[in-house]
Amino acid sequence: MAKRGSHVVRADAAEPGMAKRGSHVIVSTDLFALTEQLCAIPSVSGNERALADDIQERLRTSASKLTVERVGENIVARTDHGRERRIVLGGHLDTVPPNGNQQPRRERDTLHGLGTADMKGGLAILLDLAAKVSADPARHDVTLIFYEGEEVADEHNGLRKLFRDHRELVTGDVAILLEPTSGWVEAGCQGTIHVQATFDGARAHSARPWMGVNAIHKAVPLLERVASFEAATVDVDGLDYRESLQVVRIEGGIANNVVPDRCAVVVNRRYAPNKSLDDAIEELRAICAGADHVDVLNASQAAPPNLWNPLVAELIGVYNLPVRPKLGWTDVARFSAHGIPALNLGPGDPELAHTAEERLERADLEGCAKVLASFIGC
Amino acid sequence: MAKRGSHVVRADAAEPGMAKRGSHVIVSTDLFALTEQLCAIPSVSGNERALADDIQERLRTSASKLTVERVGENIVARTDHGRERRIVLGGHLDTVPPNGNQQPRRERDTLHGLGTADMKGGLAILLDLAAKVSADPARHDVTLIFYEGEEVADEHNGLRKLFRDHRELVTGDVAILLEPTSGWVEAGCQGTIHVQATFDGARAHSARPWMGVNAIHKAVPLLERVASFEAATVDVDGLDYRESLQVVRIEGGIANNVVPDRCAVVVNRRYAPNKSLDDAIEELRAICAGADHVDVLNASQAAPPNLWNPLVAELIGVYNLPVRPKLGWTDVARFSAHGIPALNLGPGDPELAHTAEERLERADLEGCAKVLASFIGC
Repeated sequence: MAKRGSHVVRADAAEPGMAKRGSHVIVSTDLFALTEQLCAIPSVSGNERALADDIQERLRTSASKLTVERVGENIVARTDHGRERRIVLGGHLDTVPPNGNQQPRRERDTLHGLGTADMKGGLAILLDLAAKVSADPARHDVTLIFYEGEEVADEHNGLRKLFRDHRELVTGDVAILLEPTSGWVEAGCQGTIHVQATFDGARAHSARPWMGVNAIHKAVPLLERVASFEAATVDVDGLDYRESLQVVRIEGGIANNVVPDRCAVVVNRRYAPNKSLDDAIEELRAICAGADHVDVLNASQAAPPNLWNPLVAELIGVYNLPVRPKLGWTDVARFSAHGIPALNLGPGDPELAHTAEERLERADLEGCAKVLASFIGC
Repeated sequence: MAKRGSHVVRADAAEPGMAKRGSHVIVSTDLFALTEQLCAIPSVSGNERALADDIQERLRTSASKLTVERVGENIVARTDHGRERRIVLGGHLDTVPPNGNQQPRRERDTLHGLGTADMKGGLAILLDLAAKVSADPARHDVTLIFYEGEEVADEHNGLRKLFRDHRELVTGDVAILLEPTSGWVEAGCQGTIHVQATFDGARAHSARPWMGVNAIHKAVPLLERVASFEAATVDVDGLDYRESLQVVRIEGGIANNVVPDRCAVVVNRRYAPNKSLDDAIEELRAICAGADHVDVLNASQAAPPNLWNPLVAELIGVYNLPVRPKLGWTDVARFSAHGIPALNLGPGDPELAHTAEERLERADLEGCAKVLASFIGC
């Protein structure tokens, strides 16, 4: 099922018309222009309000038949036609900080700039779908989630808040996150754990190191173990999940003439969805043996690829979408933890997200929109 | 000559009288009370002016026959009787920042507080010697140096400035620094070098570490080499100089979800005075092989113990002083670099310097004062 050779099936180049805002009937949305407009509204994490207001207003005017709820800077728009299945589609409003690329810039069929790929192209598709299912009820019921705080610490994640306080708003039979995947289905996701291993020493003047205990030297066996660790590649449902283990931060010492009495090492473990979170934490603690303290900074379970799920299988099969495993953690694991099969599928190159070269191709955007519209039957 | 079993020869307990300030004849100074007064004037590095003013005023009133020069917050007081030999004695005015011990506190014959050992007891002895050689010319000519900025970066060191701009003021046949040694002669000093070894990597999302280069992992071979290094103990003039090599600081990584693209490691080498600075730097660079950049942060040559020098031999022999090697770097190396044999000899426990437990015993102070006064013949 995995490792398909074919690339994403592109939709035929749509003839983009102008969005008729203010009317209740949308014939065709110029998704490319809409993405550019959304990118022109800055929405770095913590500052999503202006974009949330803009999207709420767009929903009011072009998707008036949907039930729209606003919770903080999170917006949930839903149909309620009593269909057998409910498809949840979600995208985050926030971007990482700009990297000289705050202003979107269009160059023929390429849109350059912050948020083009991650993930305002996806938000444009969600708005387009909202207008479509408002105008004409679809085969499935649909829930569209626009949420805040995805690019920062989990405590700020809007989807987390929605699941905690309004679970009924975000539940469904399958969830699709429009994270940039270049139109691939990125199935499931690996789990991720960060631990901080701290080594205690004893200060002394650096001229007499034998009077103290060098905390950085104490950390060396752990550093060796991690640097030489041979991470496995694990097959789950025919997908290769490539695990990893690495030190992502280290800090030790307080002054050049003092034997360091503390060294803190942050280790990141990424593990395949065949393993439970508890087992992964236990393995990581064993690797950190010798540290004086091991604190779990965050620990997220993996999400299985769910390729057996009928809706997932249909999406992949009917449109002959290429499938690959998702190695980074995304909010699909949050849906998965709540019993909702989920996958990533969206326009934009994930490798360019968070870089100054972030950009989006018109064909990628429109192809992805067409697949999703067809899948939900609108 | 080294490793003597006997401890410092204490002077008989002097009957301390009151210093007669304002008179030109000092019968006896209560060194302990004077030390307490000097400690009551804060003089953290960079803020030595009040203490320098106080000392200048004391010299004016109680050592009026000396030639006194003030250069910034440095004071040099000298006799000029045309003697064959000139003994230089020096002490720094500054202290490290307080550690809850700013106010001196006397408890019977123990004076607690910042600067008591490092090194206002030594400054009190210098003031006492100044009064004595002013009242009655000594066997040798004497230069007394009170200087700023010893506890901080070399660029602030007052002795450095004096050697650079007024070398004639600070030269002599032998130099004694009144750094706390508990009355031992701490001979020569080890050299010290700090290098920063920097490793470059390439950022990538931490979910795909193989797309980047982990700079912290690149540093591990260096860390292993340093942590497992077996430093030598080197015999120079019968003194055991215990060398060392250690990592004193490390910093790497910018965020928990990014493959670290930089890791900086500060390595400190302490080496015995049988080695030249250039050779020691070359050895250290070899240890840092594999780093992308190696920057020498500071490099100070070692000072030989000079136990063969007639004045040094006399000081040690006549008073049967115990001798040990100085492992930390001190300004004796600065004198040594200018061709002036130098040693450390002062009251106070060096192990308590820079700690909250810093203190000074009356007998240690008075014993040291008596030895030095006798040595210069006043």
